[in-house]
Amino acid sequence: MIIGKVISNVVSTRKYDSLQGYKLLVIQPYYGTQERYFVAADEIGAGEGELVLVTTGEVAGQALHRKAPVDALVIGIIDSEPSI
Amino acid sequence: MIIGKVISNVVSTRKYDSLQGYKLLVIQPYYGTQERYFVAADEIGAGEGELVLVTTGEVAGQALHRKAPVDALVIGIIDSEPSI
Amino acid sequence: MIIGKVISNVVSTRKYDSLQGYKLLVIQPYYGTQERYFVAADEIGAGEGELVLVTTGEVAGQALHRKAPVDALVIGIIDSEPSI
Amino acid sequence: MIIGKVISNVVSTRKYDSLQGYKLLVIQPYYGTQERYFVAADEIGAGEGELVLVTTGEVAGQALHRKAPVDALVIGIIDSEPSI
Amino acid sequence: MIIGKVISNVVSTRKYDSLQGYKLLVIQPYYGTQERYFVAADEIGAGEGELVLVTTGEVAGQALHRKAPVDALVIGIIDSEPSI
Repeated sequence: MIIGKVISNVVSTRKYDSLQGYKLLVIQPYYGTQERYFVAADEIGAGEGELVLVTTGEVAGQALHRKAPVDALVIGIIDSEPSI
Repeated sequence: MIIGKVISNVVSTRKYDSLQGYKLLVIQPYYGTQERYFVAADEIGAGEGELVLVTTGEVAGQALHRKAPVDALVIGIIDSEPSI
Repeated sequence: MIIGKVISNVVSTRKYDSLQGYKLLVIQPYYGTQERYFVAADEIGAGEGELVLVTTGEVAGQALHRKAPVDALVIGIIDSEPSI
Repeated sequence: MIIGKVISNVVSTRKYDSLQGYKLLVIQPYYGTQERYFVAADEIGAGEGELVLVTTGEVAGQALHRKAPVDALVIGIIDSEPSI
Repeated sequence: MIIGKVISNVVSTRKYDSLQGYKLLVIQPYYGTQERYFVAADEIGAGEGELVLVTTGEVAGQALHRKAPVDALVIGIIDSEPSI
């Protein structure tokens, strides 16, 4: 899984119906992927600036309460940055 | 998910029958992957120059209205570039 | 999906039975992955030097006419290099 | 699969219910991925400083005794660093 | 798929029961991934120094004769290095 910070969100009016109701967050990864930024769906209410745990791939899609074509999902808010 | 710009499209006459009817777009990623370009299927009518949201992997194939061997799919047109 | 050129093929006598009958091509990617070369299965008869479209991951395995442990599959021959 | 060392763990109070009871470890990879660190779930009791084998993707989620949206899982403690 | 050379193997006494009986090989990739080394399961008896074909992701797990949380699997011994 990836640890990253919520930076902002993506607004898309024309999109798959199944994406309605999910927030699409721009995440800045700290650990777990070498991208500068990527987009993850959120249904637990992560706020801007919070540190989150993100899962990727098919398990992301399966974890959603309502099926959607999502390959990255916020699965937790991290209490404090892990000591590394 | 990946944010990228639609650059052009791929024409393939000899291909899997299941790919018939899907547009195959060349995408220039802004965020979410370090490739220079990659190909994504489209069934929502993204136009050249538009900024799109792309999902990858098995969830892409599952989201299609008709099954096809697609590992990247345009799932939304982005209203405006996110503030980062 | 990946765009790449067919370079040569891989010969493997001792292999999984399910791989029998599939050609295993060495592909030089142009776009979609940063590898120098990788191997993709082919069942549509892509020839050496041809530009092909390759899908990856589980959807590759699902698209085969006969199940095999394949994580990359040629799904189309590209008519001409896309304008980028 | 990835070989890496257990560095610390991630504490997340607000998270998916399905993640309750799994330890979330920060792993420093030695081989198998180019990340500096990533997070893997653990249900076999890997301790800090131990060398572990980690599997990724959908098979990680399937291997769990109780389903959870996990894309990386510790599947073994390695007896000694392999000779390379 | 990846082409690589078998370098050594990984010994893990404490591991998932489902991994019992599978050899876990350290592979040095030639083509198909940019890692220096990674671990793949083997059930066809690849020997040290042999060139092998490795498949990754969920198809690896599905190809096993007995289900196990494996994300990379040796699926063939390569007769001779492909001409590239």
